[in-house]
Amino acid sequence: MSRAIGLVVARYGEIALKGRNQPVFLRQLRRNMREALRRREVDAEVVTEGRRVHVRTADPDAALQALRRVFGLTSMSPAVRVTPDLESIRQVALEGAVRSGLGPSRSVRVQARRSFKGFPLTSPEINRAVGEYLVQETGADVDLSDGADYTVGVEIHQDHALVFADTVAGAGGLPVPLSGRVIVLMSAGLDSPVAAWMMMKRGCAVIPLHFAGSDEMTERFGGICDQLQTWSQGWRLRPVVRSHHEALTGIADRLAEQREDRWNCLFCKRAMVAEAERVAHELGAQGIVLGDSLGQVASQTLENMRVISAGTKLPIFRPLIGMDKVEIMALARTIGTYELSAQGQPLCPFLPSRPLTQASFEKFLALQPEIETDRPLYED
Amino acid sequence: MSRAIGLVVARYGEIALKGRNQPVFLRQLRRNMREALRRREVDAEVVTEGRRVHVRTADPDAALQALRRVFGLTSMSPAVRVTPDLESIRQVALEGAVRSGLGPSRSVRVQARRSFKGFPLTSPEINRAVGEYLVQETGADVDLSDGADYTVGVEIHQDHALVFADTVAGAGGLPVPLSGRVIVLMSAGLDSPVAAWMMMKRGCAVIPLHFAGSDEMTERFGGICDQLQTWSQGWRLRPVVRSHHEALTGIADRLAEQREDRWNCLFCKRAMVAEAERVAHELGAQGIVLGDSLGQVASQTLENMRVISAGTKLPIFRPLIGMDKVEIMALARTIGTYELSAQGQPLCPFLPSRPLTQASFEKFLALQPEIETDRPLYED
Repeated sequence: MSRAIGLVVARYGEIALKGRNQPVFLRQLRRNMREALRRREVDAEVVTEGRRVHVRTADPDAALQALRRVFGLTSMSPAVRVTPDLESIRQVALEGAVRSGLGPSRSVRVQARRSFKGFPLTSPEINRAVGEYLVQETGADVDLSDGADYTVGVEIHQDHALVFADTVAGAGGLPVPLSGRVIVLMSAGLDSPVAAWMMMKRGCAVIPLHFAGSDEMTERFGGICDQLQTWSQGWRLRPVVRSHHEALTGIADRLAEQREDRWNCLFCKRAMVAEAERVAHELGAQGIVLGDSLGQVASQTLENMRVISAGTKLPIFRPLIGMDKVEIMALARTIGTYELSAQGQPLCPFLPSRPLTQASFEKFLALQPEIETDRPLYED
Repeated sequence: MSRAIGLVVARYGEIALKGRNQPVFLRQLRRNMREALRRREVDAEVVTEGRRVHVRTADPDAALQALRRVFGLTSMSPAVRVTPDLESIRQVALEGAVRSGLGPSRSVRVQARRSFKGFPLTSPEINRAVGEYLVQETGADVDLSDGADYTVGVEIHQDHALVFADTVAGAGGLPVPLSGRVIVLMSAGLDSPVAAWMMMKRGCAVIPLHFAGSDEMTERFGGICDQLQTWSQGWRLRPVVRSHHEALTGIADRLAEQREDRWNCLFCKRAMVAEAERVAHELGAQGIVLGDSLGQVASQTLENMRVISAGTKLPIFRPLIGMDKVEIMALARTIGTYELSAQGQPLCPFLPSRPLTQASFEKFLALQPEIETDRPLYED
């Protein structure tokens, strides 16, 4: 029997479609895979093999855990590389099946693919030969459907064969940072880290911008950034922090003079977006990301978002706009930011007793020059 | 034994949080539930009962199907209303369990809630009494965990009890059209109908705007709108159709003169967004919705989205921005638009041989006054 080498076979999805840019995407993907493995101190070799990426390592389980946080990978399978003969394949398939608890009252199927046509058996013949052996040795049943409890994959190549068991889902998306940079307005709450993560998933280099109101919240924000970093292979998150109080003071004073403090939150958010735009120009970012979900709280209305967006030149992205709170919470759990997020945030000192929920755009146009005294609404 | 009345108990989630506006949300929700039932010709009575909505009908299965398309409902359970005594509850629970195939080698649990505390048994006692009866009569096992194959719910009220079996998920979201109107740029492709649906889910009244290039595509677009309508209780989708050719002609001519036809798609999309803005003002819409997913095709880059968004005064929403193609496809299947969408669309006559994938914003600023001759970029 051949000597078995520990291996994880990783698959990429959309990258395969990227045409002329494919080499760039693949190079970044491999680089990010290596970074994820290094961070978890998994010693491994990462190489492209046909339309897959192979990770050779002494610790496939640890590698698998690390690779689950690499955007661009759609699925991974721990695999064993053996000499391409039926006996070796059967033996290794059985070892894996026994380790996974295959036995009576559980079902198994084999899915073989031959990329080397010189192998003496066809794919259906391999399925049968390996499947019958597993049934005979473990007492399991055969189930050819997707409902099988355990699926063994076999790939036949000229100089080796691969045997792999269950496939785990990858994180999907595209390799960071190939889609470019965005500024994410990030509090210590539940939503904005999820919004940041969704942009990272699509390959963005995320720059978190936080407006500090209290030490406790800023510390929480830092912890959330650390957690997001575990997903951001290929890009180091460098948070930018500004004072919430400073950003607001002049605005809140002028609104108070006009007895229009119901507008505080709207002009505050506008000031934050304007600052995000300045930071974006400094750091070469092409968009601003907000954690808004339409109608989730009384202030996240179309009317209010229109006021907040008005006059911003960079595009504003709201990846959570069409999502429910329960969906956002489920994602936050997957990402690992749920427990870190503040549930009840301390009340903002500028919070009016009745914040506007459906701001009138005409009223806003009338107020704006009085309040944002240093900023024409639509400057050229 | 008591006479059983067909009933579906429907639950709403986020609406419960809506504070002072709750009556408005609930009224719209009931109205939309009635509309969905009427469309499927289900005769039913819809009434609020505590924190639930009860649907009394002779055909609970059909009602359940109709209610799955009502945004604002989080879950529904077919239920039976009985006199509040243990014998009636047990009998009805058994009938439901037998109908669902409960028997040996399957597991069951009972979850009782007493809102009427005068009932002789406590909730744990009801769980035990009903559970033991079901086990004795069907040979099933008890499993108190979430992993039970079959869960029976029991609610004790003063004048009646409710017995219900498995709960099905609702569509979530908020009742249409309470979040307000948006214009959705909608092709006959896969993505934009999903983007429309996500905004509908969050309570939007959607106005589809289509740029007609071929009769076949416009017909497909119509079919997609019909399918989306089945989800839009409370708002009639009235598609707006414009000529793609007309929208483009002048622009394409000027770009050809300048030998800059690589910019065709970008200025075309800008023209569509500008038309969406005009339609929005006519029809009282507060935002524009696009089906963009970052990096999904080579043209959906941050750079290109920046060019497309520049100078637009209404907010642009891109609910799919952070989603993968496979996720969008799965949603399209749920919505029912997957099969209706065109896979390969006919080539646009203005499609350049090498469309820009990462437009330079500086170059755009220089070109824009030459191409959009009737439109200052940032007008006041």
